[in-house]
Amino acid sequence: MNVIKAIELVGSSPEGFEEAVKHAIEEAKKTLRHIRRVEVVDFEVLMENDEIKMYQAKVKLYFMVER
Amino acid sequence: MNVIKAIELVGSSPEGFEEAVKHAIEEAKKTLRHIRRVEVVDFEVLMENDEIKMYQAKVKLYFMVER
Amino acid sequence: MNVIKAIELVGSSPEGFEEAVKHAIEEAKKTLRHIRRVEVVDFEVLMENDEIKMYQAKVKLYFMVER
Amino acid sequence: MNVIKAIELVGSSPEGFEEAVKHAIEEAKKTLRHIRRVEVVDFEVLMENDEIKMYQAKVKLYFMVER
Amino acid sequence: MNVIKAIELVGSSPEGFEEAVKHAIEEAKKTLRHIRRVEVVDFEVLMENDEIKMYQAKVKLYFMVER
Amino acid sequence: MNVIKAIELVGSSPEGFEEAVKHAIEEAKKTLRHIRRVEVVDFEVLMENDEIKMYQAKVKLYFMVER
Amino acid sequence: MNVIKAIELVGSSPEGFEEAVKHAIEEAKKTLRHIRRVEVVDFEVLMENDEIKMYQAKVKLYFMVER
Amino acid sequence: MNVIKAIELVGSSPEGFEEAVKHAIEEAKKTLRHIRRVEVVDFEVLMENDEIKMYQAKVKLYFMVER
Amino acid sequence: MNVIKAIELVGSSPEGFEEAVKHAIEEAKKTLRHIRRVEVVDFEVLMENDEIKMYQAKVKLYFMVER
Amino acid sequence: MNVIKAIELVGSSPEGFEEAVKHAIEEAKKTLRHIRRVEVVDFEVLMENDEIKMYQAKVKLYFMVER
Amino acid sequence: MNVIKAIELVGSSPEGFEEAVKHAIEEAKKTLRHIRRVEVVDFEVLMENDEIKMYQAKVKLYFMVER
Amino acid sequence: MNVIKAIELVGSSPEGFEEAVKHAIEEAKKTLRHIRRVEVVDFEVLMENDEIKMYQAKVKLYFMVER
Repeated sequence: MNVIKAIELVGSSPEGFEEAVKHAIEEAKKTLRHIRRVEVVDFEVLMENDEIKMYQAKVKLYFMVER
Repeated sequence: MNVIKAIELVGSSPEGFEEAVKHAIEEAKKTLRHIRRVEVVDFEVLMENDEIKMYQAKVKLYFMVER
Repeated sequence: MNVIKAIELVGSSPEGFEEAVKHAIEEAKKTLRHIRRVEVVDFEVLMENDEIKMYQAKVKLYFMVER
Repeated sequence: MNVIKAIELVGSSPEGFEEAVKHAIEEAKKTLRHIRRVEVVDFEVLMENDEIKMYQAKVKLYFMVER
Repeated sequence: MNVIKAIELVGSSPEGFEEAVKHAIEEAKKTLRHIRRVEVVDFEVLMENDEIKMYQAKVKLYFMVER
Repeated sequence: MNVIKAIELVGSSPEGFEEAVKHAIEEAKKTLRHIRRVEVVDFEVLMENDEIKMYQAKVKLYFMVER
Repeated sequence: MNVIKAIELVGSSPEGFEEAVKHAIEEAKKTLRHIRRVEVVDFEVLMENDEIKMYQAKVKLYFMVER
Repeated sequence: MNVIKAIELVGSSPEGFEEAVKHAIEEAKKTLRHIRRVEVVDFEVLMENDEIKMYQAKVKLYFMVER
Repeated sequence: MNVIKAIELVGSSPEGFEEAVKHAIEEAKKTLRHIRRVEVVDFEVLMENDEIKMYQAKVKLYFMVER
Repeated sequence: MNVIKAIELVGSSPEGFEEAVKHAIEEAKKTLRHIRRVEVVDFEVLMENDEIKMYQAKVKLYFMVER
Repeated sequence: MNVIKAIELVGSSPEGFEEAVKHAIEEAKKTLRHIRRVEVVDFEVLMENDEIKMYQAKVKLYFMVER
Repeated sequence: MNVIKAIELVGSSPEGFEEAVKHAIEEAKKTLRHIRRVEVVDFEVLMENDEIKMYQAKVKLYFMVER
């Protein structure tokens, strides 16, 4: 019976929210395998000098725990 | 005095969150008319072999009840 | 010690959710400076004649209070 | 063992919140029987030309599923 | 330094939500004094034979603890 | 593309919850135009000498930002 | 691209919470196919003469919309 | 017009969640009558030496106030 | 098997939030024993003539029910 | 009948959470009068070089609208 | 002064919700010690061919950080 | 593009809530670098023999993932 673990990451991208989600997944894949689903917890925009600098996506990532 | 009904659907698309919302609306339009507004309840990404397989949008859809 | 104020806006765009967020930010910049970050509170789609008319983004906008 | 189903409706009335709840119930009774209870989810006021046009009540309505 | 205690009651009335709130307060006053404020937690309608039987108000009641 | 702003007010009335909502709207209309909708956030009752002194309605008021 | 619909049911059983969930699923299967997952929204116990009469489970049931 | 009061209890059992709910009800019945329904607020497991020691159920118990 | 009861109190102090929590606990100890833990529900500051008059802490207090 | 308005501010202090709340109130007093109460929405700590740089308090501030 | 860490796991069992919680705990014990308590975040049922395939429990597990 | 990870810790101190937050941060710094911000999730007080034994702060800690 497999167990699933959830972790929370914040991904960023200057291009948009979907790209920010993808960056979080790319980062997670460097150390994890068997990611099953990724929930968006919230979206934010970071500003600098009153211009959009970065889109951010906080995500909860569920993956199978390997043995 | 019209009454509005709300239903909850989950739309999917391999292309992105906005497309997933649109698919839920397209599906709803096959059986419903007079849709007034659609709230995004949450966004998820389904993974397969550690690649993004599908973007999902859970939406709440409000439509006029016809008589 | 600076103080940050938060206000809530709803931006709209016929093109998509990200554009709706940007419109809210553009509007805010007409009267405010020093915006630091923008949280997405929720996304909605307005329908007209059962077609998508407008994407809406309710956002919470944080900016430095100037003296 | 009976099963109860819940549906969500938005009722409207120019007279007040209680009337808006009643309209949602009246509408539901046209197609449903055995309504057991009705929870108020939230109340809203719609404005037109800066005057109150309509009171709205979003309600969750629980009814026995008939066989 | 006075301490305030909160209790939760559900008041009922066949007449409406405000009356249901008042009944909860009237009941509380039989055993408590120094009630300071009453928050509405939620409103419900109980149905019988598909007619409105009772309006219910769940309230949180704050009162000064006497010594 | 118009932008909508949301503000939060607490209206009061010795007569009831609906009147409290109306007072908040009346107050808002002294300085704002183009109010579109008003959400009830919560209802409270203020007590004095264990009698109901005031009904209060916290509301969120959405209005078009004028240019 | 399939669309999933969510409905809310309350199942009951004198035996326990898991049985109450199963009854809601059994009822749903009389009219629906392709149920994918069932979330427990909350559990309640109904009492009669101060004895446990019924366990209740409010569930949200997700199923594929067929064409 | 009867008034209902709500209280919050945490029941425990080494056997399981349903038994923990029952223990909370049994305890309540020592001092209260006319319990109408019991909502499960949350479930917890207490551990000792990395073994399950106790199942806990926080419940909200609604009973008629007697006169 | 012991049962735990939860009550909600609001403690006040002109000195700060921690003192407000302590006052609520001190008050509770006048009539209760076997308090196990105290959750902070929220903190507020009461103002008078635009000066801080009182810090308030709403707390949920869990204690063993004695037999 | 007075109306109360709520605004949201984030105050900061290198000294602690209570000081951060006070700074938000001090800032508000430069432009507002008749502040009645201040709710703490949440507390955060900002870090720099892995040392605590600033305590932050997001607060909701309620004040009487003057005429 | 010990510090406690919280992690989120999803345990599964074809037998029931309690077994699903136990599986999550068993899995956690393979790599962690000093587990203190386990909160149930939510319960789900996975279906296959319209039959119950698996009970799932999402849990939050608190354990002492060892040095 | 850096990714941020969030973890949840519970820090304790016999002295107060702020010290409890600091202990959680101190513990985290033994194994993590590049902590950016720390959200307070909730505060609790543990009692022993009806005296305050420990202040506890559950915090969510955000740090840059290093490569």
